[in-house]
Amino acid sequence: MAMTMTGVAPRLLRACRREPVDCTPVWFMRQAGRYLPEYRRLRERYGLLDICRTPELAAEVTLQPVRALDVDAAIVFADILLPLIPMGIELEFAAGEGPVIRNPVRSAGAVEALRPVVPEEDLPFVLETVRLVRRELDGHVPLIGFAGAPFTLASYLIEGSASRQYLETKMLMLQAPAVWHALMSKLAEVVTGYLRAQVRAGAQAIQLFDSWVGCLSPVDYRSYVLPYSRRVAVELAEEGVPLIHFGTGTAGLLELIRAAGGDVIGIDWRIDLGAAWERLGSDVAIQGNLDPVTLLGPRQVLEGRVRDVLAQAAGRPGHIFNLGHGVLPQTPPENVKAVVEMVHEYSGQF
Amino acid sequence: MAMTMTGVAPRLLRACRREPVDCTPVWFMRQAGRYLPEYRRLRERYGLLDICRTPELAAEVTLQPVRALDVDAAIVFADILLPLIPMGIELEFAAGEGPVIRNPVRSAGAVEALRPVVPEEDLPFVLETVRLVRRELDGHVPLIGFAGAPFTLASYLIEGSASRQYLETKMLMLQAPAVWHALMSKLAEVVTGYLRAQVRAGAQAIQLFDSWVGCLSPVDYRSYVLPYSRRVAVELAEEGVPLIHFGTGTAGLLELIRAAGGDVIGIDWRIDLGAAWERLGSDVAIQGNLDPVTLLGPRQVLEGRVRDVLAQAAGRPGHIFNLGHGVLPQTPPENVKAVVEMVHEYSGQF
Repeated sequence: MAMTMTGVAPRLLRACRREPVDCTPVWFMRQAGRYLPEYRRLRERYGLLDICRTPELAAEVTLQPVRALDVDAAIVFADILLPLIPMGIELEFAAGEGPVIRNPVRSAGAVEALRPVVPEEDLPFVLETVRLVRRELDGHVPLIGFAGAPFTLASYLIEGSASRQYLETKMLMLQAPAVWHALMSKLAEVVTGYLRAQVRAGAQAIQLFDSWVGCLSPVDYRSYVLPYSRRVAVELAEEGVPLIHFGTGTAGLLELIRAAGGDVIGIDWRIDLGAAWERLGSDVAIQGNLDPVTLLGPRQVLEGRVRDVLAQAAGRPGHIFNLGHGVLPQTPPENVKAVVEMVHEYSGQF
Repeated sequence: MAMTMTGVAPRLLRACRREPVDCTPVWFMRQAGRYLPEYRRLRERYGLLDICRTPELAAEVTLQPVRALDVDAAIVFADILLPLIPMGIELEFAAGEGPVIRNPVRSAGAVEALRPVVPEEDLPFVLETVRLVRRELDGHVPLIGFAGAPFTLASYLIEGSASRQYLETKMLMLQAPAVWHALMSKLAEVVTGYLRAQVRAGAQAIQLFDSWVGCLSPVDYRSYVLPYSRRVAVELAEEGVPLIHFGTGTAGLLELIRAAGGDVIGIDWRIDLGAAWERLGSDVAIQGNLDPVTLLGPRQVLEGRVRDVLAQAAGRPGHIFNLGHGVLPQTPPENVKAVVEMVHEYSGQF
């Protein structure tokens, strides 16, 4: 476990374990990204995948928000779809459209053709980025590694892009359950290996992004998703770093997501943090949950909402402040920095 | 109140009032629509708005699923955006893209320019459709009228189309609250007048569609939406017909939606119906909540899921079976019919 200069574990890692903290730790999903001018300048010269594949650039981008914002964690800069490329997927980032997969996976044959991933050979740049960032951070704040959860990766593979209804994904589930289970099994293995490699390279906590799982009914989640997320969580537990299990739109799935595993459950803004924590129980930590749009509003509203979230988490250790999803590209960086200051300053008041 | 031939109120209306029923009533959002071949044949000759504006055609489309499926209610065929047209909106239905508004409303001036609606003058075709359908149904099943809720209408007005993040909508809320409240106030008035006119023309129950409200945090819902939905509900209560208050993705908002009003709360599949009803309390009826994609799956899975929903509602009156959102265009009509039969047959078994 990383130790700070003073010999106390960083507050992010303490919060993951529900140990007392001096103030609430805060970081942001997509804290490295398009809202930062220093990131946009780099993107004028390099493509997204170029940055991911060049450890010096990816490390630089990872560190930008740590320098600019005083956040309590770095998160390795990578795309959640990276591990799909060595599996055999033709991935493109169409301008303004997000990722597009030219050969979506919708048949037994297509699942069969997916190759296993050896992270050290297939994704060495991610692991090298982890090592570089750890060296640069030198214990200043911990580094979070991450991967997409099997369901969210499956939904991209099957739909070929982000989706509104996840029709193809759900149809594969219902109409070809054997194909579905084979796909999820392969993905669970890839995700586990990829995360394990990140931990061994130096990641001190892991976030599992099941970003799109909120499109499912509890009964579908239980049958088609939970066993695979649990498999990842159980195998990762052996690595001894905390796991943050995140999804959006999960207000109806919380108990099942918890059952799948994770030391911290990440939630979005569509549920009160206090209500969510009550349902999750007090023996798990929680991460969230400000609506990212709030950072585009007036400072006074923003301040009120930050206080609301902190108040709902008050009185017990184990809260990590974050947004309910990624920082929006339109966000003024000074508002992001202001949230960090508010969280550090106000969290002692509740 | 409509009486059937036997002098007993139809089971849909009984369920709305949580009175005992012979079996669970069932209808479907978008039960009149593209999945029905008889509807598609009409659409080859007429545009969507043409059908809405021609009472004989709209009545025919309204009655198609009643004849084909043995559902327990008809719902007037109309588009939720119709009342926006007399307010001054340029609405188009782009092929395959859904509704597009060419002049979105994002300023105080634009809100100011929105005209009030006089349903009898501005939307006479909807009211005439209601009257025609009532005559044709002759007490066979009740007729449901409907409108979009103020928030969902506002989101279309502001975004100009359906949206994924509702960024413009939320930004108007946060950055220009006075404009937001003026808009919602106008919309609440239009919606109330439009629904009242439908009831007076013969609608025997009303559904308020707040389809997109699930994008909001509880704190935003409470401040920016609840007062206006409540205003509609309170004013409608004077008309003496049951109100079904529906939204999707509302698992974190249920208590607030209930507080806004409605005799029946409509939920989607993202929460277990039993868990939702427990949170709503037993003094309100519930509608839902099968995932529409289930109707594209194998019959055996479909049957299991219908039984699951019925089992969760068992033991107390006040359940109306429905999907969690509209019937998908790809749905085989025979599966829709099969669900009606299953609900009628199995609901006595729980």
